[in-house]
Amino acid sequence: MAIKLYDLRLKGDRRPSPFCWRAKFALAHTGLAWTEVPIGFTDKAALAFAQSTLVPVIDDGGTPVKDSWQIALHLEATRPERPLFKSTQARAFAEFASGWTDQTVHPGLFPLLVADLYDKVEDKDRAYFLETRGKRFPGRTFDEVQRTARESAIPAFRASLHPARRALGTGVYLCGEHPGWADYALASALLWCRAVSSFKPLAEDDALVPWFERMLDLYDGMGRRAPATS
Amino acid sequence: MAIKLYDLRLKGDRRPSPFCWRAKFALAHTGLAWTEVPIGFTDKAALAFAQSTLVPVIDDGGTPVKDSWQIALHLEATRPERPLFKSTQARAFAEFASGWTDQTVHPGLFPLLVADLYDKVEDKDRAYFLETRGKRFPGRTFDEVQRTARESAIPAFRASLHPARRALGTGVYLCGEHPGWADYALASALLWCRAVSSFKPLAEDDALVPWFERMLDLYDGMGRRAPATS
Repeated sequence: MAIKLYDLRLKGDRRPSPFCWRAKFALAHTGLAWTEVPIGFTDKAALAFAQSTLVPVIDDGGTPVKDSWQIALHLEATRPERPLFKSTQARAFAEFASGWTDQTVHPGLFPLLVADLYDKVEDKDRAYFLETRGKRFPGRTFDEVQRTARESAIPAFRASLHPARRALGTGVYLCGEHPGWADYALASALLWCRAVSSFKPLAEDDALVPWFERMLDLYDGMGRRAPATS
Repeated sequence: MAIKLYDLRLKGDRRPSPFCWRAKFALAHTGLAWTEVPIGFTDKAALAFAQSTLVPVIDDGGTPVKDSWQIALHLEATRPERPLFKSTQARAFAEFASGWTDQTVHPGLFPLLVADLYDKVEDKDRAYFLETRGKRFPGRTFDEVQRTARESAIPAFRASLHPARRALGTGVYLCGEHPGWADYALASALLWCRAVSSFKPLAEDDALVPWFERMLDLYDGMGRRAPATS
């Protein structure tokens, strides 16, 4: 029985959630087939079977698993033939890269795309988004947050990707010869942006540009085929 | 012939340089013996043989190597029996962790210890330190920078260590079962502080505290035996 992945959907079948992208990369890495159940921000009832209110959630033949990291650990434990981590060091790197992406990349990127994202939210979910995300920018509109960020915060955001650029070096992936969790975490953040905005988070001459192109091509072009905003 | 390591020395034989500590961990990891040549900030002539003006520099039986990362790569290439990295993924993690430590940990920690550090600089090197490090804080004294940082910047510094805390998890080292470059890079930053200041960069209940104790014990207590300020 194919795994079911509950995924966030915006207008035009856009799939922005970086955490859902991590789960998709984990599934694809493990060589598994899955079907997607697209839901809106407010379709919380659909996730109740997994005691969750947030995507991603998977239903693995009756076993519910919530949270992208827990999904990765679940796949690692149940499908050891194509491991995501292989060694305790690789798993530690995955944890480190998750922590860095959550703490540095997402907060840096969110103000740069928030108005474009809000624009793509389904009408029925707009009030929810406005309330939950608006709190992060008290007294400011998403338009103002995004305009200000694009005027002043782009250099700092790009500089913040230095650890990823160092990991890539002259190599192919952030994890070396083969793609791994650090690649999936950062590519997922960039796919979040690509789904909703024509804004280019990377400078044209950034060494991460050809890397991200490779990431879009991975797994039969899974990322590239996803609806984008350009 | 034992490797010679040129190391920065302050008053009381304190050895603060985090990059020299990385080189020492790399040497110890590789199971090599080395002798140290302690120098001051202004003893640039001592490093000319390696076309360097900065420590660490090693003299490996007549082969000069400068820069802690280049020293690691040199040891990896010439002593493959105890590899620092083992796989391209482990090396990518090492690059990632170096980049993160350089970009996040050092700039966060420096203002918290700069006055204590300056206080331990040898008299002959104080003008050099004042000129080169003072530029980073225009119009402010080191005392003022340090006082302000300790009043307001400690929570943000501690929060910035989140990726390391995630990598550690419930495990033993940031690199998993065995210590590796991510451990060495962060421990070296904390040893920098320990050499010159009684300031505690970690909260008492931080999971990184027992980890750092383990790091101090590694390699016959290399870190613990170093002169500290308490």
